[in-house]
Order: sequence, then C-alpha cells, then structure tokens
Amino acid sequence: MVQFATRMNNLKGSAIRELLALANKPEIISFAGGMPAPELFPVDKVRAAADAVLTEEGRIALQYTSTDGWPRLREQIAERMGVKNKIKTDAAHILMTSGSQQGLDYSARVFLNPGDVVLMESPSYLGAINAFKTCEPTFIDIPTDKDGMIMEELEKVLKTTKNVKMIYVIPDFQNPSGRTWPLERRQKFMEIINKYEIPVIEDNPYGELRYEGDFLPALKSMDTKGLVVFLGTFSKILAPGYRLGWVCADDEILQKYNFMAQAAALQASTIGMMEVSKFIDMFDLDEHVNTIRECYARRCKLMVDTMEKTFPKEVTFTRPKGGLFTWAELPEYIDTKEMAKQALAQNVAYVPGEGFFPNGGNHHCMRLNYSNMPDDRIVKGITILADVIKQNLR
Amino acid sequence: MVQFATRMNNLKGSAIRELLALANKPEIISFAGGMPAPELFPVDKVRAAADAVLTEEGRIALQYTSTDGWPRLREQIAERMGVKNKIKTDAAHILMTSGSQQGLDYSARVFLNPGDVVLMESPSYLGAINAFKTCEPTFIDIPTDKDGMIMEELEKVLKTTKNVKMIYVIPDFQNPSGRTWPLERRQKFMEIINKYEIPVIEDNPYGELRYEGDFLPALKSMDTKGLVVFLGTFSKILAPGYRLGWVCADDEILQKYNFMAQAAALQASTIGMMEVSKFIDMFDLDEHVNTIRECYARRCKLMVDTMEKTFPKEVTFTRPKGGLFTWAELPEYIDTKEMAKQALAQNVAYVPGEGFFPNGGNHHCMRLNYSNMPDDRIVKGITILADVIKQNLR
Repeated sequence: MVQFATRMNNLKGSAIRELLALANKPEIISFAGGMPAPELFPVDKVRAAADAVLTEEGRIALQYTSTDGWPRLREQIAERMGVKNKIKTDAAHILMTSGSQQGLDYSARVFLNPGDVVLMESPSYLGAINAFKTCEPTFIDIPTDKDGMIMEELEKVLKTTKNVKMIYVIPDFQNPSGRTWPLERRQKFMEIINKYEIPVIEDNPYGELRYEGDFLPALKSMDTKGLVVFLGTFSKILAPGYRLGWVCADDEILQKYNFMAQAAALQASTIGMMEVSKFIDMFDLDEHVNTIRECYARRCKLMVDTMEKTFPKEVTFTRPKGGLFTWAELPEYIDTKEMAKQALAQNVAYVPGEGFFPNGGNHHCMRLNYSNMPDDRIVKGITILADVIKQNLR
Repeated sequence: MVQFATRMNNLKGSAIRELLALANKPEIISFAGGMPAPELFPVDKVRAAADAVLTEEGRIALQYTSTDGWPRLREQIAERMGVKNKIKTDAAHILMTSGSQQGLDYSARVFLNPGDVVLMESPSYLGAINAFKTCEPTFIDIPTDKDGMIMEELEKVLKTTKNVKMIYVIPDFQNPSGRTWPLERRQKFMEIINKYEIPVIEDNPYGELRYEGDFLPALKSMDTKGLVVFLGTFSKILAPGYRLGWVCADDEILQKYNFMAQAAALQASTIGMMEVSKFIDMFDLDEHVNTIRECYARRCKLMVDTMEKTFPKEVTFTRPKGGLFTWAELPEYIDTKEMAKQALAQNVAYVPGEGFFPNGGNHHCMRLNYSNMPDDRIVKGITILADVIKQNLR
C-alpha cells in the first residue's frame, strides 16, 4: 500500500481546471476560465521575436541560465513596474517564475508551517487557496465590501489571532470579485501592516487591465519596511502559454524565494524569457495592452449590461473597472455547483463560487469571465444563464 | 520581524548554482555544471519548429493548456519510452513538468511528511537532495559499489527502518558517480521493492547518452505493482533552456502528481511543449542524440585518459559508459571545498563532493563534468587540476 503525504489530503482537482476540461468543446460558451482572448495574441510579433532570439542568440536561449532569470528581462520588468505600479525597484530584486502560480506556491512554502494562519479577502483566488493548501495552513478570510478588504475587520483579526504569517491580497480587479481597493484603503492597509509586521503577498495579474478611472499605486510602492512581496505575470498582458511570472521583494525575503526556486525548479524557461524580452525590445507592449483593454472593456460592459437586462432582480453582481471577472451573488438557497450542471447541459460554463472561500460555504455565488468569448456569445450565454437562474428561483 | 517557515532552515544556495555563477566568466574552464555542449544545440531546426508552431497554431501555443500537458508531445514521449526504456505506457500516464527538477519537487511533496525516511544512493544527485529537503525528511544513503546501490545494504535498511516512504535512484549513468546498475541488480531491486511496496523515483536524465555497451531496460519497465515513478527530461537530449521534463506513473500516483501540479504551477509552457513536439515530428531526434553521444563519448574518454596520465595515483575515479560526469575520490585528508578555491584561482571549476551526501561528510570527493567544454580545454583544465591536487598531497 503506497502512502501519500498528509498534505495530499488537502488537494483535489481544482474546480476551474475540471470545468476547463469540460468547457473545451467548441460548442460550449465558457465564462469559466481566466483565459485571454486568443484572437488578440500578437502571434506575428511573437514569431518575429522568437526568430530573432534563435537567429542571434540561439545557443544561449537553449542553455541553462541563472535561477533569478534572464537579466535583460528583469531590467525591463523593473522599469515597467516603475511606470505602471509606481514601484521603485531594479533587476536585482526580481526573480522570474514559471507563471504567477509558482510565485504563489513559493510564497506559501517560504512563510507557512502547518497550522500557521493566512489571511485573505473573502472571496479570494481559488488557485491561491489551492497553492497555499499544500502547506496545510489555517485560513481566515476577511470580510469585504465594494472597495475590497474591510480594514477594521482585518485589524480585529490581527489583534486577536496568533501565528498570522502571511496576508494574501489582490488589490487590483480582484479575482474573483472584480473589486479594486481605493487609495485610502491601500494607505490604511500599509499602516496596519507596518504595525503588525506581517508579510504581504500582493498578487497583481490584472493591474494593467484598467478600463476606466485612474491607475492606483501598488501596495509595494508604499512599502517602507520590506514586508510586501509583489507577484507579476505576463499571462494577462501578453500570453499565458509562456508561463512567465515574477516575484519582486526586498533582499532578505527574495533570497528565500531564490533558495526555494533552486530547490523546486532551478529556473524559468531561458528561451521563453528571452523571447518575451525580445518582444518588449522590438515592439510596443503598451500598444498591445491597449488593444486588450479596449476589447475587454467592451466585453465587460456587454456582459454586465446583458446581466442587468436579463438576470432576475434577486441576483446582484459587480461592475468591474478592469480585470477579467464579474462576481454574482444569487439567492442563498441556490447551489451554483448544482446549477452549473444545468448550465453546462445548455452549453454554458461558469465557476461556482464555493471554491473561492478557503473555509467553504457560500454556495450561492458564481464567477463569470468576459475576456475569452466574442461579443455575440457573451450575449447569448448570459441570456441562457439568466433563464437557468430563473428556473432555480423559488 | 518577518518569520520564515521551518523548512527554509534546510535550504541554502546550491553549491552548483553558486559555482555556476562564478564559473560564468569565459576564462574559466568549468567542469562544474551539468550543462550540454551549446555548440551541438540544433538551433536552426529549433527555429524551424518554432516558426512552424507559431505559423500554424500560434493562438493555441500562446494560450493555457491542460495540467498534464500538450497531448501530442505526451504521445511522442510514451512512444519514445517504449523504444528507449522498454516501458509500455501511453499519453494518459504522462504528466509534463517544467524541467525534471519540478518532478523531483513534486515527488517529495506527494510522498513525504516531515521526518519520513528517504533512501538514496551514496552519493546521490545534489539537486534531488535539495528538492527533498523542502519536505524535511530524514535521509539514509545506501552504500554503493562500482555497479550502483548495494542490494544487501538496501534490504538491511528496509528490514530495520520504519517510515521509509520513498526510494530515489538514478540507475543509468548516475549523477554524480557516472555508475550504471547492471540488469541483475535492477531485477533484484524490483524484487525487494515489490516485497516492501515502497514508491521508487527512477530519475533518468542520461539513459539515452550511452557511449558503450548495451542499453538496459528501465526499472519502470519491470514494475508490476505500479510502484515506480519514472522521471524523464529533454534537458540532456535536446535543450535545458526549454525546462521540459515529464513524470510517468500509474493511475493512482499520477493523479496525486496532477493535483500537486495544479496547486504548484498549473501547467508547463504551452509554446515550449508544442515546439519540442514539432521538432520531434519535423526532425530526427535520434540522429541529434547520436551527435551528442559521439561528442560526449570522445570528451569523456579524453577526460578520464588525461586524468589517468596526470592525476596522482592516490586519486581514484570512475570511467563512465555514458552520461555527463565522472567522480573522483581523493585522499581523505583533502577537503575539496577548500581546494575548489585554489582551482578557481587558476580558472578551473568543479563541484566538491560534499553536497552529494545528504548527511554531509565525504569532503574528499569531486564531480567532474565533461560535456560542456571543448577538447583542448578539457586537457588543459585537467592538467591544471592535477597540479592543484598534487600541491595538496601530504
């Protein structure tokens, strides 16, 4: 009888990945994944960048490189973070990862012993919960309002809870809720953090995808004590197929991530990092991001407008100003996991809300993605979903 | 004061990665890393494969894919394992990883609780020891002779040790010793394993790089109880820059690896997997492997011949029939870590043996890599190293 480690008891297939497997059929209108619009991928430019890398530096691209990652790319990222997130940093404070998910995994392993407490928004990103579970922590999810995590609730928990070792937040266009923390809340959060000196994982995959309003500085830009670990990724602004993300942190913490990376993976893909770096040198990444923003802004509006028109009044949902998701709350007696089967039978997929709560419950919520489907299928899918919901009303 | 998880106490920078950083200067003759010869990388063919993928299926290559990885590539791997390793398997029993190091990391996390016992060869691969340490196990290294792990010693330990949860072995051209287990020893090992029913991690990065003698079947090919997890990689037969490896295991175990992959990384690089798959479809990977084998066979012979000519008689070393490394044992009073500084001062790098023993000791050994340096530098570097050793003799 083969025995598995106790951490494996916490892991099961992620609801998203299972749904994605089902939702892979072309007839399915999928609001389930967090996938970019494939028709917007700058394929020709990527091909030109790949060709340039392999023509000019092929023997370097196919070889091992350092654990922290391709130096030129880390420079470009540091520069970009200065402009986009107001974070003053440099290449020496960036470690490349194989996707942001790996940054989440390293975060848990750097900070968490079994039983240690992690704080997060309620709801929070399912993939982060899953990554953290491998370290067997205790989760406390902090209540949120339309502006994200409620600071009074956070402080209440910090005052009364021992062994809080990490706080995980997504202040920009949160997954799954689509909510964004205003400036004042960010400042208040940093005040509290500086008082309690707890490491913060600031996950920022969507910050550049703002559709209205002003860009806000990252928590990391206000970090005077080296407590904030910033996670970035190319998955939403360029292409998830490369699996390239990064960790930005101060010296002491980043060294631990580097040790973890040496143990867990050695390094991210050399050829991948060099191609993305070459893309940024050859082309205008901002221009590409603008194309994405324009398309997703339209799809976002189309989805929530259609929801307003077709969903019964018992359903509430967010109107995101950026990112990839809206979050809907149905009457509490509706189990969205059960309802997902009915929706799938009519070729519409979404992610039930339950998985976004680390301690379960909240069976009446759902996450809807608007980036991956063309306009007509958004309208059609939401209209079908509205009917499915109505059939479940008491 | 930021607190880190206790597992971080076990991790420090790997001796290899630190040496590689130093050994990166062009004037250094490096026998330190396990890097392929960059001049043999099939750069033009890789460029053609990359171009074909981005021309034909660019929008798929840049998108997310399933956790187990690109289906066509897994088919190709399964077919290849049938021919090369005599393992009967299929795509459904293969999970792609971001390099074999990730397979080692997942292995530890699937099987090991803190304090559980891992058995391995003495010496064994430094990177595996480092990966396993994140799970805080107890290591027992089993004595070896010229034919690898000694089966009587293994059985002695299994008879008397509780909580053995995993056995890690490299039966083909072991890193660091260069030794290979003969067929009879493989059969005996499987007999013992079947009796005690302990999961085995069979790490096989070098199996295809045989320079003389007959290819031997993998342990996995003799696995009747689903106990063996086979780890493969493209790093040594194609290019490490892609960071692509794989896990082959039976259903129950592979599902656990899949759950771990969902939590830790989501998936390997889509574009990377598709390019390697396209390479295999467009070109003859065997022909490329033959080119590598021819070159490394020559370099291996050149290195050990030069060692025979120049090293003092007090030094013993292996004559590998494949793989990337030879292993030298010096008089016990010589500390190869101290001596490495003297060698580096003369622009020669190697890896001190200490790191290959999970419980330390054995300061008098060294690992020498012959794949990465051209012929003339091998002769020059070994000659310098011989002088450094002589200066350390009493």
